[in-house]
Formats: sequence, C-alpha cells, structure tokens
Amino acid sequence: MEKLEKLYEGKAKQLFATDDPEVLWVEYKNSATAGDGEKKEDFEGKGRLNNLITTLIFGLLAKRGIPSHLVKRVNDTAQLVKKMDMFPLEIVLRNTAAGHFSSRLGVEEGIDFDEPVLEYFLKNDDLHDPFVNDDDLVVLHVCTREDLAEIAPLAKRINEALIDIFTKIDVKLVDFKIEMGRTSDGTLLLADEITPDSCRLWDQRDKSGKVEHLDKDLFRRDLGDIIPAYEEIERRLAALADAEGVTLD
Amino acid sequence: MEKLEKLYEGKAKQLFATDDPEVLWVEYKNSATAGDGEKKEDFEGKGRLNNLITTLIFGLLAKRGIPSHLVKRVNDTAQLVKKMDMFPLEIVLRNTAAGHFSSRLGVEEGIDFDEPVLEYFLKNDDLHDPFVNDDDLVVLHVCTREDLAEIAPLAKRINEALIDIFTKIDVKLVDFKIEMGRTSDGTLLLADEITPDSCRLWDQRDKSGKVEHLDKDLFRRDLGDIIPAYEEIERRLAALADAEGVTLD
Repeated sequence: MEKLEKLYEGKAKQLFATDDPEVLWVEYKNSATAGDGEKKEDFEGKGRLNNLITTLIFGLLAKRGIPSHLVKRVNDTAQLVKKMDMFPLEIVLRNTAAGHFSSRLGVEEGIDFDEPVLEYFLKNDDLHDPFVNDDDLVVLHVCTREDLAEIAPLAKRINEALIDIFTKIDVKLVDFKIEMGRTSDGTLLLADEITPDSCRLWDQRDKSGKVEHLDKDLFRRDLGDIIPAYEEIERRLAALADAEGVTLD
Repeated sequence: MEKLEKLYEGKAKQLFATDDPEVLWVEYKNSATAGDGEKKEDFEGKGRLNNLITTLIFGLLAKRGIPSHLVKRVNDTAQLVKKMDMFPLEIVLRNTAAGHFSSRLGVEEGIDFDEPVLEYFLKNDDLHDPFVNDDDLVVLHVCTREDLAEIAPLAKRINEALIDIFTKIDVKLVDFKIEMGRTSDGTLLLADEITPDSCRLWDQRDKSGKVEHLDKDLFRRDLGDIIPAYEEIERRLAALADAEGVTLD
C-alpha cells in the first residue's frame, strides 16, 4: 500500500490517501493538545503508543463482535483504515462524573452513574464543539433519527465492551470519546481512535485511594509525564490481547 | 382567598402561600431581566400585562385540551395557581432558529426548522442554567425516563396548540420556554407563565420584511420599549379569547 497526498491534518493525527480509493493512511503524531487547542506539547513516543493502543483496542473490540474502520497497522506510527463518510460528532460515553460533565453540572468527580450517559458534541472548531441533543442534530441535518437510532445503541455496546476490556486490566473506564461513520456500502462503523487521549482511565491497582490517571488528564492538569502512563496502558492491553489471541498485524 | 407569607421571589414573579395549602398566590412584577440577570429594568405595567397574557394563553390552551396550573386571576397583577412539585427545568421549544440556538450552533436567525426542537436547561443560577440532555437528567435524578416520556410529548402538544393560537393573531411563534410540575395526585401539568418574556414572537402583520419583535428581545437587544409590544400581544389575545368564548376570570 502506497502513502499518497495528505488529505487532512488534525491535532493528533494526519490522514493520507493511498493507492486504494477505499483505504486511508493514518499517521499518529507526537503532539498533545488540551483546552480547545490552547495548550500544546510534543511527547516523544506518543504517536507510536497511540497507534499501538488503538490497534490493540480495535482488535479486542472485534473479538467482542464490534468491528471498526481499522484495516491494519502498517508501521510504528501508522495504520490503514477504511475510507468512511464520517459523522461530524464527538460521541461521548460517561460511566462516572468527571471533566466537562462535572464542571458543567456541578457534580463531584468520581461519582458513578446509575447508567451510562451518552452525549453528542458537534465537531466544529469555530463553535468550540458545542454540546447538542438529538433534536438539534436532526434539524441541523447532521444526522437523521434513523442514524441516531443506530448510533446510540452501538455507542452503548462499545461502552460495555470497553468496560469489559478495561476491567480485565484493572482500569476504571470513567468516560471516553469516539467517532463513527458509514462505509461506502452504508455500514455504520466505529472509527477514529480509542487511546488515553480520548478516554479517562483511572488505575485500580493503586490502592492509595487517590485517583491515578492513566490518560491525557496528566497533561491537561499538569499532573506529570503522560508517556509512562500510556506505556502502562499499552503493556496491560498487549498482555490481554496476547491472552485472548488477538494479534497486532 | 387570603394572601399569606412570601415563599419565593424570582426575577419576574413572587410566590405567596394562601389559606388553602393546595393553592399559591403568584404576583407578577414589573421587572425585566436579561443576560443571566446582568441586565435589569422596571417597566410600569409589565406585571399587569404578563398576568393578563398568561391568563389568556392558559385559557386558550385549556380550550385546546391542555390544562395548566392556573386556578384564576385574582387582581390586575396576581393569579392563583395549584401548588405543584416542579421539575427544575426550563423546557424550550424552538420552531425557528434564534437566540441561544443561533449563537451556539452558528445558524442564522429566522431559519425555520423541519420539525420542532425540544431542549432542556437545568434551572440552576450557580451553574447558569446549563443545557442538558435526557441522559444527564436521568443520572442527575432530576427526572426519570418515565417523566421524560410524558414531558416531551406534552411539550410538543403545547407547541402545536400555541402555534395555532399565535397564527390566529398573526404572530410567528419562534421559540418559547415553559415549566412543568406534578400536582399532589401526580398529574403532569404546564405551570409557570407563557408571556412575551418567555416566548419569541415575531409580528406577521408588519410587511416590511424586517423582523418586528413583540417580545423581551426588545429589551435584551435594546430595540425599543417593551410595553407597546406586550400591549399589542395582550390586545390580540383578548380579541381571540373573546371570539372563542374564553373568559378571563
């Protein structure tokens, strides 16, 4: 597979065309951003780790009956994915109060919900990714009621599968952000990435009672170096993948 | 009915106990606020007009099969209402893009939607009445799924009835905010007020093509005196009520 012209550059990834019109080349960058892009820093090794972690998680999800856009990892920092018609949505699942939910609604971080919370944010830099509800999305023609009736249950199923995966590696899945799109034949698929950039992951092996962040909150909140945390997530996921017979390539 | 101790003072109304434990006394004030309470001004006659307008609209809605908490108007600026267990929610219905929807989502004011948009805002001054979705409300224990399954269809029915009412008086119902609660026997009812403070009302008799506001946007946006506009709404509603045999008291 040949890497051709760059199609798009995001905050943490670059997207390239390939010689197959149905396949894109995703290059994971070392940069991390936070606070609506106001805070930015490069971390040596982050691109490699997130490429690995996404590949491992998409493999573990596929084993649980949830396919993704991933075709295969091609090198340390790159993977091939199916070309999709993406919904311009950040699909957020929350199991425990934290971050934007806590600040917006005055709820202490760490309070577990009775049931998962699904929230949509419109991907629009100029509007700062506003929070939207189903009716908003329908009248904005971002998606139809029929799309939402597929997206919501898939998001809930992904949450259940991810809770299963992270529980097995002693990590609490507090919340996460995913994206979805449709393939050329109309199939709704999980896309983008699942990494410590896009999840809140709290270590359950630490018994001090204090929250041990294994995610980008280390960077957002200046709590320490992200790389050892991302390495720890990668190591535990790799051991689980190995135990389940999920291979990387 | 005797007016007893003050129970609550809001931005535009005061609430008093009465000698009937199931009935409250609502006193409409002359004050108008905007911009999260930052802008505040008194308008002579506003309390009387809003008391009249709410009474007329609740009467016109009752005629259309939609009861409210209203018992009866007792004087120029006061009405008696049923004591209810209120949901701490601003229930917003939108037929046309305007205000917060337009600024939040970058949509030009005046664009009509394919279908009504229902949005919930949590009534909480400290949090500045944040926008919430159904899942948020459920995990916050503000209401149950069963409550929402009653609230949403009632809100849509109220919207349809209000569109019918305002169309008949040549006014475009752009959007509005209502509140709901349950009576002591558990019945879900429309409560609070429906006035030019809580609706966006655009005059359709003006043929200049320019939006003629007959609502609180006149105050919010410094477009002119609100009293003539509120008087115009009251006059047209009174004529409609008269034609439909809806009486004030």
